[in-house]
Amino acid sequence: MTNFEELGFSKVDYDREERTGFPEIVYGMSKTGEQVQKIVEKLISKHNKTLVTRISEQKATDVLASVPGGDYCAHSQTLVYGGNEPIARGYVLIACAGTSDLPVAEEAARTCKWMGCRVETLYDVGVAGIDRLLAHRALIQEASVVIVIAGMEGALASVVGGLVKRPVIAVPTSVGYGTNLEGLTPLLAMLNSCSSGMSVVNIDNGFGAAYQATLMMKLAVDGGHSN
Amino acid sequence: MTNFEELGFSKVDYDREERTGFPEIVYGMSKTGEQVQKIVEKLISKHNKTLVTRISEQKATDVLASVPGGDYCAHSQTLVYGGNEPIARGYVLIACAGTSDLPVAEEAARTCKWMGCRVETLYDVGVAGIDRLLAHRALIQEASVVIVIAGMEGALASVVGGLVKRPVIAVPTSVGYGTNLEGLTPLLAMLNSCSSGMSVVNIDNGFGAAYQATLMMKLAVDGGHSN
Amino acid sequence: MTNFEELGFSKVDYDREERTGFPEIVYGMSKTGEQVQKIVEKLISKHNKTLVTRISEQKATDVLASVPGGDYCAHSQTLVYGGNEPIARGYVLIACAGTSDLPVAEEAARTCKWMGCRVETLYDVGVAGIDRLLAHRALIQEASVVIVIAGMEGALASVVGGLVKRPVIAVPTSVGYGTNLEGLTPLLAMLNSCSSGMSVVNIDNGFGAAYQATLMMKLAVDGGHSN
Amino acid sequence: MTNFEELGFSKVDYDREERTGFPEIVYGMSKTGEQVQKIVEKLISKHNKTLVTRISEQKATDVLASVPGGDYCAHSQTLVYGGNEPIARGYVLIACAGTSDLPVAEEAARTCKWMGCRVETLYDVGVAGIDRLLAHRALIQEASVVIVIAGMEGALASVVGGLVKRPVIAVPTSVGYGTNLEGLTPLLAMLNSCSSGMSVVNIDNGFGAAYQATLMMKLAVDGGHSN
Amino acid sequence: MTNFEELGFSKVDYDREERTGFPEIVYGMSKTGEQVQKIVEKLISKHNKTLVTRISEQKATDVLASVPGGDYCAHSQTLVYGGNEPIARGYVLIACAGTSDLPVAEEAARTCKWMGCRVETLYDVGVAGIDRLLAHRALIQEASVVIVIAGMEGALASVVGGLVKRPVIAVPTSVGYGTNLEGLTPLLAMLNSCSSGMSVVNIDNGFGAAYQATLMMKLAVDGGHSN
Amino acid sequence: MTNFEELGFSKVDYDREERTGFPEIVYGMSKTGEQVQKIVEKLISKHNKTLVTRISEQKATDVLASVPGGDYCAHSQTLVYGGNEPIARGYVLIACAGTSDLPVAEEAARTCKWMGCRVETLYDVGVAGIDRLLAHRALIQEASVVIVIAGMEGALASVVGGLVKRPVIAVPTSVGYGTNLEGLTPLLAMLNSCSSGMSVVNIDNGFGAAYQATLMMKLAVDGGHSN
Amino acid sequence: MTNFEELGFSKVDYDREERTGFPEIVYGMSKTGEQVQKIVEKLISKHNKTLVTRISEQKATDVLASVPGGDYCAHSQTLVYGGNEPIARGYVLIACAGTSDLPVAEEAARTCKWMGCRVETLYDVGVAGIDRLLAHRALIQEASVVIVIAGMEGALASVVGGLVKRPVIAVPTSVGYGTNLEGLTPLLAMLNSCSSGMSVVNIDNGFGAAYQATLMMKLAVDGGHSN
Amino acid sequence: MTNFEELGFSKVDYDREERTGFPEIVYGMSKTGEQVQKIVEKLISKHNKTLVTRISEQKATDVLASVPGGDYCAHSQTLVYGGNEPIARGYVLIACAGTSDLPVAEEAARTCKWMGCRVETLYDVGVAGIDRLLAHRALIQEASVVIVIAGMEGALASVVGGLVKRPVIAVPTSVGYGTNLEGLTPLLAMLNSCSSGMSVVNIDNGFGAAYQATLMMKLAVDGGHSN
Repeated sequence: MTNFEELGFSKVDYDREERTGFPEIVYGMSKTGEQVQKIVEKLISKHNKTLVTRISEQKATDVLASVPGGDYCAHSQTLVYGGNEPIARGYVLIACAGTSDLPVAEEAARTCKWMGCRVETLYDVGVAGIDRLLAHRALIQEASVVIVIAGMEGALASVVGGLVKRPVIAVPTSVGYGTNLEGLTPLLAMLNSCSSGMSVVNIDNGFGAAYQATLMMKLAVDGGHSN
Repeated sequence: MTNFEELGFSKVDYDREERTGFPEIVYGMSKTGEQVQKIVEKLISKHNKTLVTRISEQKATDVLASVPGGDYCAHSQTLVYGGNEPIARGYVLIACAGTSDLPVAEEAARTCKWMGCRVETLYDVGVAGIDRLLAHRALIQEASVVIVIAGMEGALASVVGGLVKRPVIAVPTSVGYGTNLEGLTPLLAMLNSCSSGMSVVNIDNGFGAAYQATLMMKLAVDGGHSN
Repeated sequence: MTNFEELGFSKVDYDREERTGFPEIVYGMSKTGEQVQKIVEKLISKHNKTLVTRISEQKATDVLASVPGGDYCAHSQTLVYGGNEPIARGYVLIACAGTSDLPVAEEAARTCKWMGCRVETLYDVGVAGIDRLLAHRALIQEASVVIVIAGMEGALASVVGGLVKRPVIAVPTSVGYGTNLEGLTPLLAMLNSCSSGMSVVNIDNGFGAAYQATLMMKLAVDGGHSN
Repeated sequence: MTNFEELGFSKVDYDREERTGFPEIVYGMSKTGEQVQKIVEKLISKHNKTLVTRISEQKATDVLASVPGGDYCAHSQTLVYGGNEPIARGYVLIACAGTSDLPVAEEAARTCKWMGCRVETLYDVGVAGIDRLLAHRALIQEASVVIVIAGMEGALASVVGGLVKRPVIAVPTSVGYGTNLEGLTPLLAMLNSCSSGMSVVNIDNGFGAAYQATLMMKLAVDGGHSN
Repeated sequence: MTNFEELGFSKVDYDREERTGFPEIVYGMSKTGEQVQKIVEKLISKHNKTLVTRISEQKATDVLASVPGGDYCAHSQTLVYGGNEPIARGYVLIACAGTSDLPVAEEAARTCKWMGCRVETLYDVGVAGIDRLLAHRALIQEASVVIVIAGMEGALASVVGGLVKRPVIAVPTSVGYGTNLEGLTPLLAMLNSCSSGMSVVNIDNGFGAAYQATLMMKLAVDGGHSN
Repeated sequence: MTNFEELGFSKVDYDREERTGFPEIVYGMSKTGEQVQKIVEKLISKHNKTLVTRISEQKATDVLASVPGGDYCAHSQTLVYGGNEPIARGYVLIACAGTSDLPVAEEAARTCKWMGCRVETLYDVGVAGIDRLLAHRALIQEASVVIVIAGMEGALASVVGGLVKRPVIAVPTSVGYGTNLEGLTPLLAMLNSCSSGMSVVNIDNGFGAAYQATLMMKLAVDGGHSN
Repeated sequence: MTNFEELGFSKVDYDREERTGFPEIVYGMSKTGEQVQKIVEKLISKHNKTLVTRISEQKATDVLASVPGGDYCAHSQTLVYGGNEPIARGYVLIACAGTSDLPVAEEAARTCKWMGCRVETLYDVGVAGIDRLLAHRALIQEASVVIVIAGMEGALASVVGGLVKRPVIAVPTSVGYGTNLEGLTPLLAMLNSCSSGMSVVNIDNGFGAAYQATLMMKLAVDGGHSN
Repeated sequence: MTNFEELGFSKVDYDREERTGFPEIVYGMSKTGEQVQKIVEKLISKHNKTLVTRISEQKATDVLASVPGGDYCAHSQTLVYGGNEPIARGYVLIACAGTSDLPVAEEAARTCKWMGCRVETLYDVGVAGIDRLLAHRALIQEASVVIVIAGMEGALASVVGGLVKRPVIAVPTSVGYGTNLEGLTPLLAMLNSCSSGMSVVNIDNGFGAAYQATLMMKLAVDGGHSN
C-alpha cells in the first residue's frame, strides 16, 4: 500500500506528493553530505524537483557535484532544484523587521517560489519607525497571505495583523541578545498577539511559514473544494 | 480618519470590520460584566452581531439581560449574537485528541460558525488508538482547513499534518498534569512538528485557531484576489 | 546618625524623605492590617502624608478607621493620604493597551498624582488598531515622560517608543493566558524592544513606573542641578 | 565487605556485576583518555569485558593502544570489548524517527548487543509518514521490548505505544532547533504521552534505554524468579 | 477494521485489550462525572472490568450509583471494578521515600493489583536514614521490578538503582516546596541518575509506573516470546 | 510623508532625529561589515554623526576605511563619529560592581558622551565592600541620573537606589557563572529591587541605559516643556 | 543494627539522635493531623522532645490534644515540645529584610531556640535604607553565625556577607510578586553573591538554615573535635 | 575611614582581612591577565599571600612572571601564593561522586589548604555503589565539616547528610548532559534534600564551599566567641 524506498539510514517517502501535495523536502542540518546527496538523487529521479533546507556550503558543494542543475544560496542555506507548478493568482508578502532577519526571510522567499508562489518582500520595517511600515499599507493589504518575520520583541507581527483581512503567519527569529533568549521572547510575544488571525511557527523557521502559506495559496486557487 | 467610540475604559473600534473583515470581538476574561455589556451594546448597534469569548456564566447573565437574542454556551464560555455571512464552500474540520479537550474544541466550533464557516468535528481520536483516527481519513483529507486540538503531548497534530494537503492549525490545551506544564508541553511539541504545513496558536486558544481558519476559508472563496 | 523608629516588626525610616525625596511608601500586600495601620500612623504623624499600595479592601477599612482623611481606591488597591508638592510643568502620559490593564494604570496614575505630577491618560490603544493610537500623536509627543502599560505581547511599548523624544517606562501586566506566563512574555518583549529610550519595571508594577517617572519630572523642574 | 580498587581518581567497583548483573560501564565524556585507559584495563583484567560510552575518537585511540581487541564506533561514540552471555529469546526493537537520530540509535543498539540482546532496527519512521510505520506492524508487535528514539516533537513514541503489548522505553534526542530546546521538548512530550506502558530516559541517552531494556529481557528469560 | 463505540464526546476503544493487552483505562480528572459514568458502563459491559484514575470522591459517588460492585479509594483517587488475570510469579516492589508520597504509592499499588500483579511495599525509606533502607536489602533485591516513588530531591531512586539487577521505574512526586518546583526537581534528578537500569514517568504518575511494571511482569511470565 | 532611503536590505530612517531627537543608531551585531558601512555612509552624509554598537574589530576596520574620522573602541565594541550638542548641566554617573563589568560600562559611557552628556564613573564598588561605595556618597547623590551596572547578583543597584533622589537605571551583566544564567539572575534581582525609582534594561545593554539617561538629561535642561 | 519503629505509613527513626545529634523532626505539610499526632507521640515517648514544622493551626489542635505541653505558633507554623541542651556560648543572629519575611524568620528563631541556641534578631533592615542596617554593625559582627532572610531581590545577604568574619546562611523568601517568581529570584541572587562565606537553603526554609546554624554552633562549642 | 587602592579598573580592598578575616581573593575569569597581575602584586605587597581562582593557564603564566613564588594548578585553575595561619584542630572532608567532579574538588581542596584547614578527600563515592561510601563511615563522621561535590542528580549530598552530626556544604557540578541542564539539576536536588543540616553554593563553586567551610573551622577553634 505504501511506497517508499529503503536506504538503510532513510526511508524515502515517494507517496508524500500524492498525500500532501508536495514531495518530501530534505532537512539538511544533521545529515551528512553523503546522506543528503543520496536522498536528493532519489527524490530528483522520482519527482524531478527537490528542496533542501539548512544545508551548509560544504555539504551543498557535495550535493551539487552530482546534481548539476541545483541552485544553492549560502545566505539562506537552501538548495533548490526544479520547482512546482506556479500558483496563478495573488502573492505572499514576506515582511521582516530588520536587516538581521534577512536569512530567515530569504529561506521563506526561496521556499515559496520553489513551491510555486509569487512573492513580494518588505524588509526593515520594524515598529520603531512605524511610518516606514504604514507607507506600504496597500502592498500589505493586497497580499493573499502575509509572513511576518521579526526578532527582538517581535512587535511587527501584531501591528501587521491589525491591518489586514488575510491570514498572517508569524516567524520569530533568534536575532537579539540577553533576554531575547535565542528567539523565545519574540515567539512568546507572537503567540500572545492582541491581533486576531495570526499563527506562529518555530524560531527561525522561514521554511515552515512558507510551506503553510503556500498551502493557503493553493486552497485559494482551488476555491476551497477538496481535491 | 479613524472611527472609534470613546467609552473611557475602552475605545470601541468601528473600523475593524472594514479593515480586517470582521468586527471587534470581545475578550471577556478580565473585564467586568458591566464593561462587557456596554461594549456589546455598542457593537450590536453598529454591526448587528457580536461574539464574546471567555465570558463566565455570571457575566453572561448580565449581558443577556440587555441583549435578549444572545446565545450563551457555558461549556465553551462563549456568547454569540447574530452572525456573519455564510462561506459557501468547503468545511473546517475540528479534530481533538480527548474528551477533556472539548471546551476548547467547542470554542473553536462556535467561533467558526459565527464567522460563517461550515464545521465538521472529530472528537476523541488521540494517537494511543491510531486506528480510530485512520478510520476517518476521508473526512480529514477533504477538509479545506484542519484545526487539531490536543493536550498531553499533542502528538495528534503531527499525525494529522502528515495526512493532508491543506493547512493545519494546532491548538495545544492545558489538559494534563505534572510536566504538561499547563499546556507548554503540547505547545512546544506542536512548534517542533516533523509534519510540514502546520502553525500554532496560544494554549487553549480555540478562538484564535478558528479566526485564522476562517480567514483561510474566505481567501479560498475569494480565489486569492485582494478585496 | 540614622533616624528610624523601631516598631519591632518594622523600622520606620524617617530619613527617607531627606535622602530620596519622598517618605517611605508602604507595600501592603503581605503585612497584616494592624501592621499597616501602625506604620501609617507613624508616617502621617511625621510627614503628614502617606501612600499604601497593594492594600486589600478589608485592610484599608482597618486603616481608614484610624486615618479618617485617607482615600481608598479598590480598583487600584491604593490608599492615599495628603500629597506632595505639585510639580509645576509638563505631564506624565499613562497609556495602556486594553481595558484589562486599567487596575495597573490606575495604580500608576494615583501614585503620580500623590507624588505631585500632572497626569494625562490614553486607555485602550493596543496595536491591533494602530490608528486609534496614532490619532493621539500630539498628546503622546508632548508628554514629558510616557508610561506604557500592556499585557499580552506588550507591543504597544515599542510603537510608542518609536514616536517620542522623551523617556518611556514600560510596565508589563499579567493580562493574558497560556504563554503569557503571568506577564513574563510582555516583560521579556519590552526588555527586547527595538525602540531606544525605554526601560522596564516588574510585572504589574504601576507604582514603580510612576515613582521613577516622578523622579524624572522633578529632575526636569530642578533643571538637572543637584539638590 | 565491599570489593573495589582505589585508583586515586576512581574507585573501580568490582562488586557491581554480582550486585546488579553487569560490570561497571565507563562514561567517557569528562574523563581524560588516560583515566579511561586505566579504568578499562582494570575492568578487563577482572571481568574480561567492558563498554565505554561517549568516548571521542582521540581518547578511543589511546585506549585501543593498550586494549587491542576493542571495537570502536565513532558514529555512536562507543567502545566495546568482549560481551555478555546471549539472551536466548525475543528481541529488542529500536525504532527511530529520522536519519538524524541514528547516533543515539546506534549507541542503544551496540549497548544492547554487548549486553547480550538480539536487536532489530526500524529507522526513519517518523509520524509525518504514518504509513511507513504501519507497514511494519508485525515487527513492532512481536518485539519483547521497544526502544523509541525521536527528536523534534517525539510523537513517534506515543503512536508506537498505542500499538503494542510490551514495554516501551522512549529516548528523546536533541535533534531539532529553536523551541526543540536541545531535546527538552521531545522529553516533555514523551513524559506526557497519552499511551500507557511507556517510560522515559535522559535526552540522547541511548545507553540508558538499552540497559533497562536488557534488564527486562533478562527478567523475561528468568521467568520473573528472583536470582 | 477498528472497533470502537461513538458516544459523541468519546470514542470508546474496544480493540485496546486485543491490541495492548488491557482494556482502555479512564483518566477521570477533566471529565464530568456523567461522562465517566457512561464510559465506565460501556467498558464494563464489554470487558467486565475497569479502572478509573484521578477521580474525585464526588464523581466516584456518581459512578458507583450505577456500578455497585466498584471499589473507590479516596486516598489514591482510584476506582476499580473487577480485575485482570493474576500474574503467577514474582512481585512488584513499591518503595517510597516519605509518608507524604503515599497517595502516589497507593495509586501504583492499586493499579498493579487490578492488572494482576503481586505487590510488596516499603514505605518511608528516604535516604536521610539510609540504614532503614538497607535493612530491607533482600526484599528489594528479590523483586522482579521496583517502582521507586520520591519527592523532594528524589535520591532514593539512585540508591535503590545501585542495589538491584532488575528494572527500576522512578516516579517523582510533587511533595516539597520552593525549588521542588511541584515535582520538577525530583523528575530532573531521576532522569540524571548515576545508576543504570532506571527510567522515569511523569510527576505523580503512579499509574503509569504500575502499568509499565505490569507489562514487564507479563513479559517475564511469557518468557519473552511474542504473543 | 515619511522620509527614508531604501537600500534593499535596509530602509535608513532619516526622520528619526526629527521624531525622537537622535538619528538612527546602528546595531552592528548581525549585520555584515559591508551592510554597516553602507548604512553608516548614508547616516553621516545626512546627519554628520553616527554611533555603531556591538561592532567587532574586523567590521570596524572595514567601516573606518571609508569613514576616516571615526573612533573605534574594541573594549566596548563601539564606533563613534562626530557627536551631538553638549547638554549643559549635571552629569550621568556610571557605577559598576566589578572589573569584569567594564566593557558594558564603557559602552554606556561612550554612548552618553556621543549623545552630549557629561559622564562621571565609579568602578569596582560591589557591595561585598560596602564602605568603598559609601566613601563616594557625594558623587552618587549629586548625579542627575545614575546608571548602575552589575553582574552576579546585581545587589549594587538596590543599595544605590536607596541613597539617591534621582532616577536609577539598572543594567544587569552576564558576568558570573552557573546560576548567574548568563545575566538572568541580576536582571530578575534588579526588577525586584526593594528600592524605588529604578528601572531596568536588557542584559549587557549599556547602550540602552545611556540612551534613556540622556533623554532624562535633555528633559532636565528643557525644563519639562514639550519641544 | 538499625532501630526504627514501623507505623505502616512511617518508619520512626530512633537512631537519628545518635547518628546526627538531633532526633527526627516532623515535616507537617503533607501529613494528616492523625499521622503527625502518632509520630509525635512516638518521638516524645522516646526523646521527650519534638519539633514539628509547617503544621497548620487545625492539625496543631489535634496534636496538642494528646500532647498537652506543646507550644504552637501560628505565625511560623511550628509546634515545639521540650527542647535540647543549651549551647553555652555565642549567638545566632537572624536578620531579615522586611516585615513580610517575619514568618520565615520566626520559624528559624524557634528552631534555633528549640535546638539550644541563643538567638538575636534584627528585623526590617532591607538595603533600601542601608543606614538602618549599618547602625547595627556590632550586633552583626559579634554573632557566631548569621542567618539572612530576604525576599524581593535578596540583596541584604550580600551586604551582610561583606561585613562579617563568620558564616552566613541565606534564606530566600517568596515575598514579592511578578518576576520574584515565588522566591526563585532571591534564591538565584543569593547563590551568585559577590560576598564570600555564604551558602543558601531552599525558599522559605527558615528551619533548614536554623538547623545548619545550630550544627555550626555545636561545632564551635566542641572546638572542632569529632564526637 | 576605608582603606582601598584605586587602580582605575579596580579598587583593591585592603580592609577586607580586618573586616572578614581573609584578604580579597581574585576571581580571574573575566579579567585580563594584566589586570590580574596588577591586583595580585598589590595584594601580595600588602598581605604577603594571595589566591586567584578560575585563572587560565595563559593568564597564570603572565602572573607567575612577576610573582615567582606562586603555585599554579591547571586542573583546578587556581593560583596560590603564601597562605594563612593553620587551623589547629579537625579537618574538612571533601567527598565527590565521580572522577569528572575532580576539578571542582581540587578547587575546594586548594582553597581550604591556602586558608589554613587540614583536608581529607574521598573521591568517586557516588551512590550507585553505596557500599563504597559506607566503607568510609568513620572518615565521614569524624570530619568537622563535610563538602559534598556531585553532578548528575547530586544524590550523594543527601546520603552523606543523613550520616553526620556536622554541617554539610553541597556543591553541584555541571557534570552530566541533557536534563542535567549544566548543573541546575543537582543544584535543585541539593536545595531540596531530605537531610537536614545542609546548605548549597553555586554550580561548580568549589571555592565558595571551601571558604564557608573554613569560616566554620575558625569558629570552631575560636569556640564561638566573637573576635
